[in-house]
Amino acid sequence: KINGPRLWDALMAMAEIGATPKGGVKRLTLTEVDKAGRQRFTQWCEELGLTMRVDAMGNMFARREGRDPQRLPVLLGSHLDSQPTGGKFDGALGVIAGLEVMRSLHDLNITTEAPIELVNWTDEEGSRFGHSLMGSGVWAGIFGLEEAYGFTDLDGVNVSQALDSIGYKGPHPAAPFPADAYFELHIEQGPILEQEGKPIGIVTGAQAQVWYDAVITGQDAHAGTTPPSARRDALVAAARVIALVDEMMRARGEAGRGTVGQLQVLPNSRNVVPGEVRFSVEFRHPDDAELARLMAEFPQAAEAAVAGSGCRLEVTKLFDMPAQPFDPACVDLVRQAAARLGYPAREITSGAAHDAVYVARRVPTAMIFTPCKDGLSHNEAESILPEEAEAGCQVLFEAVVARANR
Amino acid sequence: KINGPRLWDALMAMAEIGATPKGGVKRLTLTEVDKAGRQRFTQWCEELGLTMRVDAMGNMFARREGRDPQRLPVLLGSHLDSQPTGGKFDGALGVIAGLEVMRSLHDLNITTEAPIELVNWTDEEGSRFGHSLMGSGVWAGIFGLEEAYGFTDLDGVNVSQALDSIGYKGPHPAAPFPADAYFELHIEQGPILEQEGKPIGIVTGAQAQVWYDAVITGQDAHAGTTPPSARRDALVAAARVIALVDEMMRARGEAGRGTVGQLQVLPNSRNVVPGEVRFSVEFRHPDDAELARLMAEFPQAAEAAVAGSGCRLEVTKLFDMPAQPFDPACVDLVRQAAARLGYPAREITSGAAHDAVYVARRVPTAMIFTPCKDGLSHNEAESILPEEAEAGCQVLFEAVVARANR
Ligand SMILES: NC(=O)NCCC(=O)O
Ligand SMILES: NC(=O)NCCC(=O)O
Repeated sequence: KINGPRLWDALMAMAEIGATPKGGVKRLTLTEVDKAGRQRFTQWCEELGLTMRVDAMGNMFARREGRDPQRLPVLLGSHLDSQPTGGKFDGALGVIAGLEVMRSLHDLNITTEAPIELVNWTDEEGSRFGHSLMGSGVWAGIFGLEEAYGFTDLDGVNVSQALDSIGYKGPHPAAPFPADAYFELHIEQGPILEQEGKPIGIVTGAQAQVWYDAVITGQDAHAGTTPPSARRDALVAAARVIALVDEMMRARGEAGRGTVGQLQVLPNSRNVVPGEVRFSVEFRHPDDAELARLMAEFPQAAEAAVAGSGCRLEVTKLFDMPAQPFDPACVDLVRQAAARLGYPAREITSGAAHDAVYVARRVPTAMIFTPCKDGLSHNEAESILPEEAEAGCQVLFEAVVARANR
Repeated sequence: KINGPRLWDALMAMAEIGATPKGGVKRLTLTEVDKAGRQRFTQWCEELGLTMRVDAMGNMFARREGRDPQRLPVLLGSHLDSQPTGGKFDGALGVIAGLEVMRSLHDLNITTEAPIELVNWTDEEGSRFGHSLMGSGVWAGIFGLEEAYGFTDLDGVNVSQALDSIGYKGPHPAAPFPADAYFELHIEQGPILEQEGKPIGIVTGAQAQVWYDAVITGQDAHAGTTPPSARRDALVAAARVIALVDEMMRARGEAGRGTVGQLQVLPNSRNVVPGEVRFSVEFRHPDDAELARLMAEFPQAAEAAVAGSGCRLEVTKLFDMPAQPFDPACVDLVRQAAARLGYPAREITSGAAHDAVYVARRVPTAMIFTPCKDGLSHNEAESILPEEAEAGCQVLFEAVVARANR
């Protein structure tokens, strides 16, 4: 029912905005490139006669009216921001497939019972301001608006300034409004569907995770004159914590996740013993109890790891989120849609967080996964096939329309 | 004989150029700030009637004529560039004390037999372009001019472009000209003179060192979806090499030096398993044979350290320099000057490299050290006392004049 080639064309058109030489995308949240993506999205929505609202976090809602003015809207969407060296599909697939759902409804002259709203959430990736799912998090009341406005990037620019600079601090409150359901299509970003040859993942929930900031303070000193006994080398101390995070992950077997993804050395000069290192730490696990153990263990184990280095360690928890199960009725609509369309499908837990995780605390929610090549994501080589995008979009269409017409 | 308060005032005036909030200096080589320092230096030299030459590497030579036109010049000087978070005295002391020598000769109406030339060498620190003693190195023929022009900083700007951008690619050849001697005053940058209460260090030579660039390549991957077995985490691998460098240093006892000072993570995003890490490695030792063992050991040991990480390691040697003894006759002039002036002094080997190390390959050379607080350098808190600067400058004056009049 949906138009596969049109969907693919729109995906490729969006991928031009922030395209990188290696075939990926750099569309960091609240930058000029993000603004360009938002403007193209707005134009496409307005061509369909949808009404665009922007809230105080820059979240964008494109509304298509239903027949029954009493009915709550069915939401669908994802995010248009990317990693610094991201792929074409992480996030964009969910938004552009949502657009294709709207276009198909338009082509087919379908008026659903409930209104439908297509959402582009602000800053899902979290790579710029240190909080993933930021826009959906404020919308769902996980962070306060003023708190989120104060999050800063590595250059000291805060979210409020960044929203103003691209003109996307909208007039609508960034707060949950009543909605009937939320559906999000996303690439799996892992290898399971591809390995099992299943075009559709019926996502039953997402795993738990915690993010930290760590700062190790030693002392800048001359690399040539400072003897081993007098060194307080913050990078040598940080190396022990990096090894610890990896060990703590591996101690949990294949289900464990532990990553230091961002790290900054000061003063970062070849012949200076580093006086300060700032870095991120995150852990994830499908089981809340295991994440709780990781959280109990990490600060103390990190303290023990740097002991004797002469350096001081400061660990700040940025946030943690428990494992989030999705709404059984919504999940069932996905399962039924895949079955009706004859797509092989399997239930799956998400290793990544998604806006759906926070939205699920307010609105009955489900997600659909499609495979990606070699399970690779957060990588410019991220790749999917047109028929995989089409299958995912078709399931999304069916689930959304079924819910809106129930 | 020299004017201590005037020396101190000039040191403080130079320290204003690139002053940092924490009381240090950021006067990175070939930046606008470096240009401002060079211009102030030129103005001071011209006020004294000195003739300024600039060579193709931006090295600056301010000449005071002697009585005998047949005599080769006696050189003195150091560098005005600093570390990104450097101190007020590393380098500047030697240049500004040289200026004070010139001013005192002027006040005292002394004409020396030989001409005297005060030098400001370009890029001693090496923190921007990866090669310490760069200007003196080209002058001494250690690097070729075109080779040095091609060295790039982290933003991809090369030395040739940087020289042009501040207008300091001078008309004179960057090549050794015949000179009678070179004297350099510098802070010790280590704790020995302060601990022993000796205001003067008679520097007999400098230790050996080697600098490397290392690149570890793994694979960018999603931190939430990528299981331990599928990770190729370049930062986890780099942490092992950082630990190795520290271990190799400590295995040499208090004489060993091993430092990773600069490190860059790509893509440097919290929820991305790092796909690439680039970092510097350096080792130093007073004994050439021990440095040779470090150089033989490191590339293989680093390869072994990353084995099993799924990452590829590439190590490139940037340069190495053997231990450099200074000229006995010049060193003796320093010894005699300290004795004549009644300053307690001791012989000392330099842990840092200095322009004197490369100049010594072409011209009889000696250095004078003065103490610095807590041995701290390459740190904004670097600190010396006015009377320490004065004593060093007085010894410099005596040694230079003795040589120029011999
Ligand atoms: N979808 C996705 O990659 N989200 C980023 C948030 C996370 O780190 O899981
Ligand atoms: N004097 C000084 O700190 N020089 C920097 C070159 C080195 O690394 O030794």
